[in-house]
Parts: sequence; C-alpha cells; structure tokens
Amino acid sequence: MTPTLGFWEGTIESLDAISQWRELERSSSDLVLIAKNVADITKAHETGRVAVLLGFQNTNLFEDRIAFVELFADLGVRVVQLTYNNQNELGGSCYEESDSGLSRFGREVVREMNQTGILIDLSHVGDRTTLDVVRFSDRPVVITHANAASIFPHKRNKSDAVLKALKENGGVIGCATYRNITPEDACATVQGWCEMVARTVEIAGIDHVAIGTDEGHNTTQADLNWMRKGRWTRGVQYGAGSEARPGKVAKPEWLSSPGDLGVVRDGLAAVGFSAEEVQKITSGNWLRVYGAVFG
Amino acid sequence: MTPTLGFWEGTIESLDAISQWRELERSSSDLVLIAKNVADITKAHETGRVAVLLGFQNTNLFEDRIAFVELFADLGVRVVQLTYNNQNELGGSCYEESDSGLSRFGREVVREMNQTGILIDLSHVGDRTTLDVVRFSDRPVVITHANAASIFPHKRNKSDAVLKALKENGGVIGCATYRNITPEDACATVQGWCEMVARTVEIAGIDHVAIGTDEGHNTTQADLNWMRKGRWTRGVQYGAGSEARPGKVAKPEWLSSPGDLGVVRDGLAAVGFSAEEVQKITSGNWLRVYGAVFG
Repeated sequence: MTPTLGFWEGTIESLDAISQWRELERSSSDLVLIAKNVADITKAHETGRVAVLLGFQNTNLFEDRIAFVELFADLGVRVVQLTYNNQNELGGSCYEESDSGLSRFGREVVREMNQTGILIDLSHVGDRTTLDVVRFSDRPVVITHANAASIFPHKRNKSDAVLKALKENGGVIGCATYRNITPEDACATVQGWCEMVARTVEIAGIDHVAIGTDEGHNTTQADLNWMRKGRWTRGVQYGAGSEARPGKVAKPEWLSSPGDLGVVRDGLAAVGFSAEEVQKITSGNWLRVYGAVFG
Repeated sequence: MTPTLGFWEGTIESLDAISQWRELERSSSDLVLIAKNVADITKAHETGRVAVLLGFQNTNLFEDRIAFVELFADLGVRVVQLTYNNQNELGGSCYEESDSGLSRFGREVVREMNQTGILIDLSHVGDRTTLDVVRFSDRPVVITHANAASIFPHKRNKSDAVLKALKENGGVIGCATYRNITPEDACATVQGWCEMVARTVEIAGIDHVAIGTDEGHNTTQADLNWMRKGRWTRGVQYGAGSEARPGKVAKPEWLSSPGDLGVVRDGLAAVGFSAEEVQKITSGNWLRVYGAVFG
C-alpha cells in the first residue's frame, strides 16, 4: 500500500511524517515493512506483513530545491504526485481553470525523479501537464488513484488521450473506489466495479490497469478540510465533492476495509478476465512498474 | 526606493531579510527610513533620508499560507511581485513556455494583498497572468521594472495590451535602465532613455509611466547565480541575459549610481515634457499609486 504522508506539508513537516512511519515500523515490525524496492515487497508478502511505500501527494516536501529530490529518495520516499489540487511550480492541477503544462522546474524534477527512482504520480495533475509528463518521463509513470473520465466524467478522472499515452509510456492507472469519482453501479457491487475495470482495460490495455481505491482510514472532517483547503484559502472548498455532497462519503459496502480487497480477484474472474489477467490487475502491473522505477 | 529582500527565499529567510533592513534603519537612522505609507515617504524626503519600501520579487515568503499575507503586511512589507522567473502556485512567469493565467490561490492572494495594502508587482510575471491580475485587482497594480516590448522585444518586457490595461487599472510601469532589457540608445544617453520614456507614455499615458531602473548595487556573479538559478536547477540559466551575454552588464554611463537620477528631470524636460509631466514621471505617479494602495 501507498499511504499519503503529505498534501500541503513542507520539508520539515514531511520529515516528521517519515519519522512517524519509521516509528510505526519499529513498534509494529511484525505487521509493517517500509519497502524500498520489489525485493522488500516480496519479503513483506512472504512474512505476512504489509509493504508500505512512502508516498506524497504533492511536491511541497522539496520546497523548490532540486537537490532535495535525491535526499528524500535516500530517506525512502518512493511515490510523489507532482501537483495536488492546486497549480504549483511544476505544473497544473485538475481543479485549475487553465493548465500551463509542465514548467521548467517541473522538467528538472521529472528528470531527477527518474534518476533517483521515485515513481511519478499524476492522479490530481491537470490533463495537459499529465500528457506532458507521460511523454517527457524516461520511466513509466502512474495514476495511483483515478478513473477514466469517459466512464465517469469528473475533473479528477483521466481522458482517454491520457490513458492511451500512459499505455505507450508503460505506466499504470489504479482504478478508484472513492464514491465522488466512481460510478454509482461500481460502488454498489464488486461486479459493477470489475465491469468498470474491464472498460478501463479496453481503453488502456491489460498491462496498464490496476487497483487504486483512494480510500482513507478513519478520515475526519478536519482531515477533509486539510486536504481541500490546506492553508491556501479561507473560502469553502469541496475537493472532489460538491455543494450537494460536501462531506465524507461512504465507502462501497463491498470494501469496508483493505482486508476486503480479496473479493476483487473473484470479481475480475467473474467478468471474464483470465487468471493471468487477474494477476496483472491485482499485483503484476504495479510490480512491473515498481521494478522499472525503483531498480 | 524599493530594494529586493527576496527572490526564492521562504518565510524564515524573508523574516531574516526584514530584520536586516530594520537593523540597517536602526544603525543608520540619519540616512534610512523604512516607509509604510506616503506620509513616511514625505517625512523621509523632508529630513534628507532615503525612504525604503520593503519589497519582494516573489511570493515564496508566504509559503502557500493565505494568512501570512496580512502578517507580512503588518511587518511592513509593501511591494510583492506575484511570480519571479518561474511559474508558481499563483500564476505564470515571463520565462515559462506557457502561462496558465492567475490560479485559484493567485486570486486569493490578490484579494488579500488588496485588503492588506501590499502593492502588487507584475514585472517578471507572464503576460497572461499579468492581464488577469490587472483586470482582477481592486486596486492599482504596478510593473516596477520593465520596458515596453513594442519598443524593445524581450520576454521581460510588457505588451501594449498589458500597458493599455494598466492604464485602465490606474497602475504604473517603472521604466528600466537594465541593459539586457533596454534599447542600446536608451542606455547610451539620458536623452535616448527619456525618448524611450516618451514613447512609453504614448502607449500607457502620462499618468502611468515612471522610473524603475532595475539596477543592483555591487552585484556579484554569485548574486546573479542566486537570482537566476535559486535552488531549482543544476543547469545553466541566463535570466534576462543570453549565451552571448551571460554575465553582469554595465550600468548606463549616465546612471552609475542612484545619486545620478537627478539628470532624468532635465532629460525629460529636454524631450518635451512639461514641468507637471516631469513631476508625474519622477515621483507623482508612484505617490498616487502608493496612496491608493497603502491607504
């Protein structure tokens, strides 16, 4: 799993978050392993532990310093999203009216993440910047938590053009279960969700679709406020929600916790995927990209 | 005068810079007065001191916190440029290939600067973002150091569309003497420079043109590197310069120090400006905008 260690947090706050995960790993070493590479993930799996990839949903941790990319890579950070809900120094976001595309600093950071083995996440990134990065990156990139916009139109979801470029790049999209960006019938039953996955595979190809979820654990209204408003606004912000649905949304009944994810394996088989294809969607595609990026 | 207290500096470094200027004011109280409003500027003038407006060429001092705008206003900051050479959370820059326009956070900051009495500087801001701000701001905005691009084409200089919008807004452009963005004949003689000012007045109007300069004092190559590269790149950056002219450029001979600026008064009269017009260009236009913004 890839927990989010930061949305708006700067360098010091991000180091605090890394320290907290190290402390959790220390105090629960029978349950948690912070993974740096595929070998670590395999080891965690074989010893009955959860492999954790340290991830950030924004680049504020770098505080505009190109050299900090390598430092955070050395500290075990493996996934970083280039922009969160707002434009930043690197590029545009899905919620801005206009997307500049990848900036000059953005190009520097993409190159540096490629070289230091940090996986580039484009989930909340604007469509134009996303396309720029998918084409500019030397390594596969990912959309860890989103759906196809042609299946469920939403600013957070990705155009077919992006998904086709992702296929060329060798990357992966992790399909979401988050109710605000997922069709109602996919939330209602695991079969509905697996049918959505099948439609996504038709767009992006069997080697480029995986599980993303985008679910929180014990998320509070204060957490939501932080994600949506950070410290940047005094106004009301709904994030992926809306005035009609401003608050926390229910998880799909078939996925009340990560422990339920096993049902997806049967669900995918039931909608027609072969055993090999199920394996790709549930783990193989992620592992291929991790291997290509983490080395 | 409006010294630059920061280019890439974050909150703490910006507070350090403010502290240094306070220390200078304390140790040289016979020479320097940090001005908060027009009354302070008048007082400095009457007592033979230099009025200093604390200015920043970037918004990194706020570190994405809307509430910090008011805090820095309270600490005496009076001029802040929205973006420096790179795109940031607020908008686009003159050196980016593509300019997003004013972002969501950018709109929040413009509103907050309007309310807290910080003057918005758009000198290095991209053309699209500049136009957005000139139209969106409730108060006059300024271009403290640039020239008209129709007179000297350069990414740092401003289109006629911007200068005409500035006129509507009630703002001011401070014409530059910096050799990389100023015509050679304007650098060669004070008459040439005053003729350039006259052409700028034809575009923006007599109430919207003033003196900007954009000159440094004892600027070193290390200073230039900081301005151009900050901590964001390991590559070569020429800023307003070029591969053919990468380093420090000479000041105009007629302006070897700020003490020489008096020659502009006669120069403007010599190219046909009336006494009243000379007064507007050399001080009146700035003071009008300062009054409208600082309150």
